Amino acid sequence: MMNNLTITEPTHFSAPSLAGGAILLEIGAEYGLVDLLRQSRTISVGEAALHSGLPPAAVTQYLEALASAGLLEQAEAMAGGAAPAYKGTAALARAIHDVGYLSWGLRACQPLIANARRFLVDPGQAREDHQRDGGLVARTSQWMGEQSFYPHAEETILALRPRHFVDLGCGSARLLVKILQKLPDSRGTGIDMSSKACADARHAAAGADLGQRLNIIESPIQSLADDPSPLAGADVIHAGFVLHDLMPDDEAVLDRLLAACREASPKATLVVVDAVPFAKDEQERLFSAAFSYLHHGFMGRELQSEMAWSERLARAGFSAVEVSKLGIPGGRLFLARGKQH
Amino acid sequence: MMNNLTITEPTHFSAPSLAGGAILLEIGAEYGLVDLLRQSRTISVGEAALHSGLPPAAVTQYLEALASAGLLEQAEAMAGGAAPAYKGTAALARAIHDVGYLSWGLRACQPLIANARRFLVDPGQAREDHQRDGGLVARTSQWMGEQSFYPHAEETILALRPRHFVDLGCGSARLLVKILQKLPDSRGTGIDMSSKACADARHAAAGADLGQRLNIIESPIQSLADDPSPLAGADVIHAGFVLHDLMPDDEAVLDRLLAACREASPKATLVVVDAVPFAKDEQERLFSAAFSYLHHGFMGRELQSEMAWSERLARAGFSAVEVSKLGIPGGRLFLARGKQH
Repeated sequence: MMNNLTITEPTHFSAPSLAGGAILLEIGAEYGLVDLLRQSRTISVGEAALHSGLPPAAVTQYLEALASAGLLEQAEAMAGGAAPAYKGTAALARAIHDVGYLSWGLRACQPLIANARRFLVDPGQAREDHQRDGGLVARTSQWMGEQSFYPHAEETILALRPRHFVDLGCGSARLLVKILQKLPDSRGTGIDMSSKACADARHAAAGADLGQRLNIIESPIQSLADDPSPLAGADVIHAGFVLHDLMPDDEAVLDRLLAACREASPKATLVVVDAVPFAKDEQERLFSAAFSYLHHGFMGRELQSEMAWSERLARAGFSAVEVSKLGIPGGRLFLARGKQH
Repeated sequence: MMNNLTITEPTHFSAPSLAGGAILLEIGAEYGLVDLLRQSRTISVGEAALHSGLPPAAVTQYLEALASAGLLEQAEAMAGGAAPAYKGTAALARAIHDVGYLSWGLRACQPLIANARRFLVDPGQAREDHQRDGGLVARTSQWMGEQSFYPHAEETILALRPRHFVDLGCGSARLLVKILQKLPDSRGTGIDMSSKACADARHAAAGADLGQRLNIIESPIQSLADDPSPLAGADVIHAGFVLHDLMPDDEAVLDRLLAACREASPKATLVVVDAVPFAKDEQERLFSAAFSYLHHGFMGRELQSEMAWSERLARAGFSAVEVSKLGIPGGRLFLARGKQH
């Protein structure tokens, strides 16, 4: 079964407009201003200056450039304030999403692109010498994901109403916090190998007042293949763009991990979000070809087709697999059910 | 008078498609393959391997990725060859142009963006410490220019049928060679401060068999304000995106240079291509705001409005100035005539 969750944009920015948006928003991200400006409220120059630690005159020049670009509009001056204030336009939200793709490709993946010939000659050494900036990868992935794949996974998981939700490769627990806030009787477990991500996740859990409901485990997800105890009693397990990291080198571990998920609870449902290689649809083919080529040639990863995923999940004991398309080209959501409901 | 030379694209790539195109074509530029593939003929794997010095298996993988993306199509195997051969699609030409903007913004300008806060705090020091890669700036500008502004300047200059054509800041003499080839009775003079560009220009002139018709002078264009002898007898003088480099620090020199152009020959026509600051049209505003913000804040340059250019050219003694829009957002072509024809 194939559902189509893609939201088609009514119009596209032109390439020069996207380049302009990318320049302005990437500078804004370096200034530390984009997260503030995207809030749907009026922001004064003073607040933006305080937030970024930059001089008000410099902040004004930057905000005026965004207003000229159509990404902000000038708002009524705030009570008691003489300096102008600004509010994000609809174009700002669209641009942040679109720029996420461009900046992931040309800024976050720049060390791979700039050394492309070395990656052909000696991929192992090149991978060690030319690593991507993890912070830049995470931020640009988030800009894409907020429209292109986060909402689809969230909706799917909420509809399953888990009591114990597990997120494999949970990062800073953005998804876990969201799910636990919407389902007050649920508890959650997140596992991630990055100590920075786990610290951020614990900080987010405390900030959201989730108390004992959220347990964060610092460990590679591979460890669950040998010690699946954190999965015990889980009824929904999510793996968002993490399982392809086990292919091809850890294929046997991947299969044992999937079986462990299957055995965690009789009704456990697995929600896998991942990319298929070289998708052929007109809307998908350009990005998907680039994403696949980078993963195969530069990152030593092997993406798997819809068929390969479905067969692998069936072998692990799941009895029904539904496949949906996501907004990100080549992205697929696999819903693998245990016992039929 | 305002003519509109903009060619509006019928459809745009989506942002993910552009990101995919950018990743694949920038990798291809690093492989040294894009200039070969864009030729409108069939290219075999063997030829591409020879051209790039890369192993045939690696070249095949890359060309297959481009084919999956829709940028190449597989062609009949060439006579006697068993390996497949490929030909660029219409999408390839569009993508190269569009990617020019993105790569100029996010790859060539990356040293400015990544150090944006330092450029605010100490612009002078930051400009010294974080310079752009001249080769990357030139190549991405060329990818934009081939559709967005080269054709407009060429048509304008050819219509004036110069006998002595001068190009200020001639780079590798791409425009000079093209004009001299189309006007067999004309001669040309190019001036550029980069010794690399002048060497390339002399090489191009020799390759095009232009003999004594093309004279390349290695010097900053500012020198013409004091020694205008290379301009003697010129009837068309072109300055493409170079005069803004004199603003604001060399404003007096700019005015003397314009007067020297005016005095070079009674009928001398000046063709200035440059960008106006913060253009407001819906199609222009995003790129123009970014381009203007980068030039003002990061490069210490001051762009001038249509009005400011027209007044400056009138002060220099030109009697009529026509303004046309270019394909590049914010780009304008100023045609400044001497004596009326």
